[in-house]
Amino acid sequence: MYQEYIRDLLQQVRDKNISTETALEKFKNLPYEEMGFAKLDHHRQIRQGFPEVIYCPGKEKEQVVEIAKRLVDSRSTVLATRATEEIYTELRKEFPHAEYHRAAGAVVIRSGEALSGVGLVAVVSAGTADIPVAEEAALTAELVGARVDKIFDVGVAGIHRLLTHGEKIRKARVVVVVAGMEGALASVVGGLVERPVVAVPTSVGYGAHFNGLAPLLTMLNSCATGVTVVNIDNGFGAGYAAALINRLGEVHS
Amino acid sequence: MYQEYIRDLLQQVRDKNISTETALEKFKNLPYEEMGFAKLDHHRQIRQGFPEVIYCPGKEKEQVVEIAKRLVDSRSTVLATRATEEIYTELRKEFPHAEYHRAAGAVVIRSGEALSGVGLVAVVSAGTADIPVAEEAALTAELVGARVDKIFDVGVAGIHRLLTHGEKIRKARVVVVVAGMEGALASVVGGLVERPVVAVPTSVGYGAHFNGLAPLLTMLNSCATGVTVVNIDNGFGAGYAAALINRLGEVHS
Amino acid sequence: MYQEYIRDLLQQVRDKNISTETALEKFKNLPYEEMGFAKLDHHRQIRQGFPEVIYCPGKEKEQVVEIAKRLVDSRSTVLATRATEEIYTELRKEFPHAEYHRAAGAVVIRSGEALSGVGLVAVVSAGTADIPVAEEAALTAELVGARVDKIFDVGVAGIHRLLTHGEKIRKARVVVVVAGMEGALASVVGGLVERPVVAVPTSVGYGAHFNGLAPLLTMLNSCATGVTVVNIDNGFGAGYAAALINRLGEVHS
Amino acid sequence: MYQEYIRDLLQQVRDKNISTETALEKFKNLPYEEMGFAKLDHHRQIRQGFPEVIYCPGKEKEQVVEIAKRLVDSRSTVLATRATEEIYTELRKEFPHAEYHRAAGAVVIRSGEALSGVGLVAVVSAGTADIPVAEEAALTAELVGARVDKIFDVGVAGIHRLLTHGEKIRKARVVVVVAGMEGALASVVGGLVERPVVAVPTSVGYGAHFNGLAPLLTMLNSCATGVTVVNIDNGFGAGYAAALINRLGEVHS
Amino acid sequence: MYQEYIRDLLQQVRDKNISTETALEKFKNLPYEEMGFAKLDHHRQIRQGFPEVIYCPGKEKEQVVEIAKRLVDSRSTVLATRATEEIYTELRKEFPHAEYHRAAGAVVIRSGEALSGVGLVAVVSAGTADIPVAEEAALTAELVGARVDKIFDVGVAGIHRLLTHGEKIRKARVVVVVAGMEGALASVVGGLVERPVVAVPTSVGYGAHFNGLAPLLTMLNSCATGVTVVNIDNGFGAGYAAALINRLGEVHS
Amino acid sequence: MYQEYIRDLLQQVRDKNISTETALEKFKNLPYEEMGFAKLDHHRQIRQGFPEVIYCPGKEKEQVVEIAKRLVDSRSTVLATRATEEIYTELRKEFPHAEYHRAAGAVVIRSGEALSGVGLVAVVSAGTADIPVAEEAALTAELVGARVDKIFDVGVAGIHRLLTHGEKIRKARVVVVVAGMEGALASVVGGLVERPVVAVPTSVGYGAHFNGLAPLLTMLNSCATGVTVVNIDNGFGAGYAAALINRLGEVHS
Amino acid sequence: MYQEYIRDLLQQVRDKNISTETALEKFKNLPYEEMGFAKLDHHRQIRQGFPEVIYCPGKEKEQVVEIAKRLVDSRSTVLATRATEEIYTELRKEFPHAEYHRAAGAVVIRSGEALSGVGLVAVVSAGTADIPVAEEAALTAELVGARVDKIFDVGVAGIHRLLTHGEKIRKARVVVVVAGMEGALASVVGGLVERPVVAVPTSVGYGAHFNGLAPLLTMLNSCATGVTVVNIDNGFGAGYAAALINRLGEVHS
Amino acid sequence: MYQEYIRDLLQQVRDKNISTETALEKFKNLPYEEMGFAKLDHHRQIRQGFPEVIYCPGKEKEQVVEIAKRLVDSRSTVLATRATEEIYTELRKEFPHAEYHRAAGAVVIRSGEALSGVGLVAVVSAGTADIPVAEEAALTAELVGARVDKIFDVGVAGIHRLLTHGEKIRKARVVVVVAGMEGALASVVGGLVERPVVAVPTSVGYGAHFNGLAPLLTMLNSCATGVTVVNIDNGFGAGYAAALINRLGEVHS
Repeated sequence: MYQEYIRDLLQQVRDKNISTETALEKFKNLPYEEMGFAKLDHHRQIRQGFPEVIYCPGKEKEQVVEIAKRLVDSRSTVLATRATEEIYTELRKEFPHAEYHRAAGAVVIRSGEALSGVGLVAVVSAGTADIPVAEEAALTAELVGARVDKIFDVGVAGIHRLLTHGEKIRKARVVVVVAGMEGALASVVGGLVERPVVAVPTSVGYGAHFNGLAPLLTMLNSCATGVTVVNIDNGFGAGYAAALINRLGEVHS
Repeated sequence: MYQEYIRDLLQQVRDKNISTETALEKFKNLPYEEMGFAKLDHHRQIRQGFPEVIYCPGKEKEQVVEIAKRLVDSRSTVLATRATEEIYTELRKEFPHAEYHRAAGAVVIRSGEALSGVGLVAVVSAGTADIPVAEEAALTAELVGARVDKIFDVGVAGIHRLLTHGEKIRKARVVVVVAGMEGALASVVGGLVERPVVAVPTSVGYGAHFNGLAPLLTMLNSCATGVTVVNIDNGFGAGYAAALINRLGEVHS
Repeated sequence: MYQEYIRDLLQQVRDKNISTETALEKFKNLPYEEMGFAKLDHHRQIRQGFPEVIYCPGKEKEQVVEIAKRLVDSRSTVLATRATEEIYTELRKEFPHAEYHRAAGAVVIRSGEALSGVGLVAVVSAGTADIPVAEEAALTAELVGARVDKIFDVGVAGIHRLLTHGEKIRKARVVVVVAGMEGALASVVGGLVERPVVAVPTSVGYGAHFNGLAPLLTMLNSCATGVTVVNIDNGFGAGYAAALINRLGEVHS
Repeated sequence: MYQEYIRDLLQQVRDKNISTETALEKFKNLPYEEMGFAKLDHHRQIRQGFPEVIYCPGKEKEQVVEIAKRLVDSRSTVLATRATEEIYTELRKEFPHAEYHRAAGAVVIRSGEALSGVGLVAVVSAGTADIPVAEEAALTAELVGARVDKIFDVGVAGIHRLLTHGEKIRKARVVVVVAGMEGALASVVGGLVERPVVAVPTSVGYGAHFNGLAPLLTMLNSCATGVTVVNIDNGFGAGYAAALINRLGEVHS
Repeated sequence: MYQEYIRDLLQQVRDKNISTETALEKFKNLPYEEMGFAKLDHHRQIRQGFPEVIYCPGKEKEQVVEIAKRLVDSRSTVLATRATEEIYTELRKEFPHAEYHRAAGAVVIRSGEALSGVGLVAVVSAGTADIPVAEEAALTAELVGARVDKIFDVGVAGIHRLLTHGEKIRKARVVVVVAGMEGALASVVGGLVERPVVAVPTSVGYGAHFNGLAPLLTMLNSCATGVTVVNIDNGFGAGYAAALINRLGEVHS
Repeated sequence: MYQEYIRDLLQQVRDKNISTETALEKFKNLPYEEMGFAKLDHHRQIRQGFPEVIYCPGKEKEQVVEIAKRLVDSRSTVLATRATEEIYTELRKEFPHAEYHRAAGAVVIRSGEALSGVGLVAVVSAGTADIPVAEEAALTAELVGARVDKIFDVGVAGIHRLLTHGEKIRKARVVVVVAGMEGALASVVGGLVERPVVAVPTSVGYGAHFNGLAPLLTMLNSCATGVTVVNIDNGFGAGYAAALINRLGEVHS
Repeated sequence: MYQEYIRDLLQQVRDKNISTETALEKFKNLPYEEMGFAKLDHHRQIRQGFPEVIYCPGKEKEQVVEIAKRLVDSRSTVLATRATEEIYTELRKEFPHAEYHRAAGAVVIRSGEALSGVGLVAVVSAGTADIPVAEEAALTAELVGARVDKIFDVGVAGIHRLLTHGEKIRKARVVVVVAGMEGALASVVGGLVERPVVAVPTSVGYGAHFNGLAPLLTMLNSCATGVTVVNIDNGFGAGYAAALINRLGEVHS
Repeated sequence: MYQEYIRDLLQQVRDKNISTETALEKFKNLPYEEMGFAKLDHHRQIRQGFPEVIYCPGKEKEQVVEIAKRLVDSRSTVLATRATEEIYTELRKEFPHAEYHRAAGAVVIRSGEALSGVGLVAVVSAGTADIPVAEEAALTAELVGARVDKIFDVGVAGIHRLLTHGEKIRKARVVVVVAGMEGALASVVGGLVERPVVAVPTSVGYGAHFNGLAPLLTMLNSCATGVTVVNIDNGFGAGYAAALINRLGEVHS
């Protein structure tokens, strides 16, 4: 909106209705941030088609619906993470085409143009209980425009199971590794591939696991190169980062 | 500098050397932050006379001198905290009027106009070993324009010593409480006054003190109202915040 | 009450009914704290009109009502924080004019003369889930006599949203910043204003957030000057401290 | 039982049925611990009348009743701590004279001869929410034979309330201080008396309180002399230790 | 000093030089704490002969000497803990009769009348490296008027060594247990005696010992009754508390 | 399956249907891990008869049944740990011979040939509340082919109870020590025997126990030789390791 | 080497010198990993030209030289991180062309063909003291074939300094953010760009900074999307990961 | 010594100088522990030839020599761990045949009959910097009578290096795994063998490694069966435990 104001101001200068000094003064009184909005357009453009996320825990279902409405209005695809079936039911009332991805515990409301899947993100996970986080990562990566290959249940204690999938993993541009317990999987995978690895520790474990602290530290201290880490159980964050990285593999990205 | 550029641009519009659309385009390509510098002037003005700080640990003495020069050039008073005698010696070569405040472990290089001391900040501390942090707080508060009253060595284990100073403490607009060991002093002082209390835990202690964690937690959990906390050993931060608060007590502040 | 006793004692001395030595002895046997009550009157006076707080968690509703009665009897306005609707219902039975501030999760029972709002406290918060803490801070500040401006949902990940509110924030005498997740908002706000900033970390987050430890550490380590910190989720404490600071901006404060 | 065996062995030696060397050999093969049981009698005697404790959490009510039966059979008074009303109901079926001390959350089943109360243990506590722990300490101390004086609701934020009770506290042989929040009360009380102080941190608090860690560290770092500490919420442990200390004040103890 | 003032005031009332109201006013303006000093005399009296402590780390030797002088002037015996040989040398210049207790790392400057040793405090320690802390406890207990029995090098890994000293330990009124590593000794000793046990964790250990955290937690969680705990390496605190407890065993204490 | 492929390949070489170079190329394209499966057979053989474990928490009952089916199909005995009665009911529908070991909270579905019990593993535990973990350890050790001796309720606070069982404990090849609270039992047992001791800290405790951290640290810092540690509450892990160790005591193991 | 062996084996089969069964047996006895070496060649190829790293702390200079020799022999460029000047001197004796990158505290010994710089990695850092870590990241990224843009000294407390560099940062394919203190910079940068951000917390800070824990938690909890984290002070790891990500931006990568 | 006393007592019974009842009484008054010394002989016998350890850090060299003398006098082989060259020099003065094992940082003084090496303990380690701990483990295991195979520098990031040694590792009765950084090696090795694995985390690492906490947690949470853990850097403990386990593999053990 400030563009109009500035255009008008410049016109007045051109028309000599106001002096350059007065115009300068007016410029200086503009909220400078607004000036930059134009810039942000470019920034927005890159994100064209990217989903917007609603992290559900701690929000009442009415609040979730409210936020979803606002986002859909701006033609964003909405990804509601850690959504209960109850939230899904509520969202479906408003958005009949809302999809419930039970395994990932997430609701997706598609809107605007979808990103077509490119490249390849491999999502590797260790135990059965880690699957929800892995599915959240996979779903997110897909929504941010990546093709995704899921390789679940390959823990380090049975290293041969992992090695069997070695070639498959090496085909990906980026690997997301999801692991609870001791989280050693990230290091082993990091040693097998020369691609960026995004590691997600999970809260799956007990005792000296301290709700995910153990695999978090493991992953941060990984002696394998190319491994970076996100927060405990943050499948969304890992999937998003992996998909961003994956998109760099496209020409003109 | 951008002001000149914009003035020139406006002049060209006025002179019809460029179209308003072209000018608008050029505006949009300006780093928008620069436009806001005018705004920051006001912000700067409030700070007129405030010292700039150099935290010395981890910097080589040449680096400290270099930064000091740059700050003095912009007519700021410089406060170098946790400065060794060696750093002082180095600074005095460049700034003969540099003062070494040994008790506070700080060097001051006055520059520009000093702030005159107003109001009253009381700096209360518990043990002998807490004094350097307390002195750093007191010195900082003075440089940020506060009158300061120091009340040292009043621990909670001898509560009558503290009570004896009750009236004196109550006269201050703000109280800085510096305490290591169990840090209980902040709560007791907070209970005696109805003024803002800025609490500084110190690393003075051993064992389950965990280098200041104990008094930090004590102060964060204080059941006295009006107590806020800064980082362990952060005398500078407490003195600065207290002086900012103290200045609110001036008319037209 | 001891004043009557002392007056009587002095009269007896004057009447020579008892010797000065006997009187001295009696004085020495008085609970010395009582002598000081007079002093505390002054202290009380400053607090004239300040609310008394009841922190509800862990108290049975009967206990809350009991304490509220005692406080109202002494003509204090009562602020019951973290109060469930159930507690409100119970309180309303006794105090029909009790107000439930749902957003802040607090009950207010006004009593005596209210403080008129002066100055300005800005309460800035990051995420939707941080709002209850921010509302508690705002409500408290109002009850302690501050005018309050609420600026919610301005996280650092979208820095332009925050910058848009820059001027508004700079008008406040004190800023309360409420933030969960990584708590970076306090530093950014602290860098924009030259006013005291009271930072409140919240428990909003998961995983390596450790129930508020992450933003707590962020805020304690803030490189912005003028920032002090209160306990995790302590909206009450921040609002109270901010209002105390804000009142210093009044003449004769 | 071994006494009979040894007596028999000695008789055989006396009757010259076996040689001294053989007897010596047999002695050496005895489980040596059994030999010592006699010694433990003396140890037991000191404890004559002391209650036996059952810590209820994590035990099913049948288990609690079972253990209680065994202890009552050996003529011990039983103290079941952190007992729900449900456990009490169950215990009363078996022991109609069982008493429920609601404030302390404990059941007492008296058995054998009670210890008469001697000396004086003062139990001082800070907040309303700390009372259950304080009551547990008081009840335990009484059962271990101490007279007890309870002084509740005397926090450090209102230091004059505490000072009012100064004389009363100083009359005790031992003081138990129960405090949550920042736990500063232990230091202040420790500075007022020259008697042993047993400090009990409680889990009452939130945020950076970390379920009692804050007051635990405060108390361990207390700069007052004579203060020792027990586990968080361990009213039983504090009351027991205090009563043991208190009994030393008796002649011939 | 205030006694004189009050006496004078009373005399003036008696002489009718001032009205009772004026006198009352003057009373109210007295620093109320001073009125209480008389009370503290009694408190002081109990401490008659008790040593004053200087904790040396973090103090310069000149500071230590300075504090020592002030204490000796008030006829207190001085105990300088964690004192290096260098500090001793400095103190001896001023106080030729200063004694260096090398094993305890402490300097004692006797002054006034010494307390005669009564009762019995047993100081039990686990490993060779724990001895300095144990010696500090023993020395402190002696200075606070206890007879002391030292039983060193009795770890739990060789339980028979400890059991051999069982009778000896049981003779004490109070037992101080000093242990690093896993700190299990406190529980075992606590199970052998029915006397108060003051446990001192030490920083002797490595790795998951975390500088004393391991034995500190062990001792706080001890399942033996009568065990209370002081800070890591706090031999002074344990010895002082033990001696206070021990003195309760005297008639008229 | 790859063996067939390779055999076929070799046959083709032998038959000169393909060149050695082509065969070599084909070998290089084989997933190399598969080649190693033969090796793993030997590895599998050692495990002949060992149970497979399903850790139930966080798995839905359908998932547990599903996994159990797959394992039973491969003729493994299944041990479902931390199984609720509900899970047992579900499993029994599918496997009518499933056994519920209530004390250990585990379901066993025997399949294939059972291991006959050899050697001796002693499982020693401290408190009543530690029994479920101890039972899990005992049950696991039995399933992995050990004879097991259970010695429960022998805490260190009553050391004579433990000593009474000294001989019995010394007869075992390996000792599993299960202890919550302060976990000192591992050190004491480690000092009594010259056999491997596997220590299991439990989450039984409160306050500064930090859900098992206290006994975990105690055990890791044990000054007794031969003690190794598993995760908090990991009865399964301890029983499994102990049984593996125990089997080394067999000839030809 | 095994390829020769296998070729020979196949030849013998072809020549019918051995049976297919014997050959199969021999295959099964081969260390199966070696079979896979061929596969790893491909893996190696990707890494063609990548540097090998030696982390110097804790290694003696002779050890560093020894390892460097072995790596140079295999034609790898060597990057010795956290290398003192002394280590450099020692390395230069052996490798006269070794370069000392003082700002990064690293030695580089180039060998084989260097990777040509492609794409763009921006390395953004907050404070002066963070520069060594930032330089290590920049140097590593260059060696792994990235063009690098360094933008230092842009903290969040002066947000306009950062915004000034907004366009520059947005040009990069990947951004490395290096920050100590509260580490808020990662969130702010993450909010400005839609590119992968690799965040490096540094140990620069004091008190409640806990040697880097504060910014580590901040970064893990960042509410900005696309942010992943490496270990404290791990400039090498961040630079390596960033360069791997950056290379994905090349066609045919 | 008590044996003489008992023999004498029995003789008196035999001689009818005292009654059996009197003798019985006297027995009951004997310190019961002494009676058991005979039992401990058996315990000692098992340990015949086992080394005694002196942990050097925190002991002065005179103390080390003193303890060594006492142990050699009782014909024990002495193992002084974490011994500096200086300590070695001092020990060699007294014991010319003392050996310095530089890689393990240990001194051995052989005495009595050495244990002959049986079975096989594999010591596997990850990084160069972990070698001292691994060597300490290997040396200890040898002294406790095990044959030892060292397999160093096999980290998980290069999994094929480890797999190459698979057979070698599987030949051992027990495997000691020594690893710093993220400590994932223990899980991988635990997955490859069906033998007891004793895992030793080391303090090798930085940042979020927290001096060994990271690999400690990794190892405690290992999802591989048969893994038990010792303290950080505790090579001695691991070697000792492994050798004890290894000896069970001998007939008649």
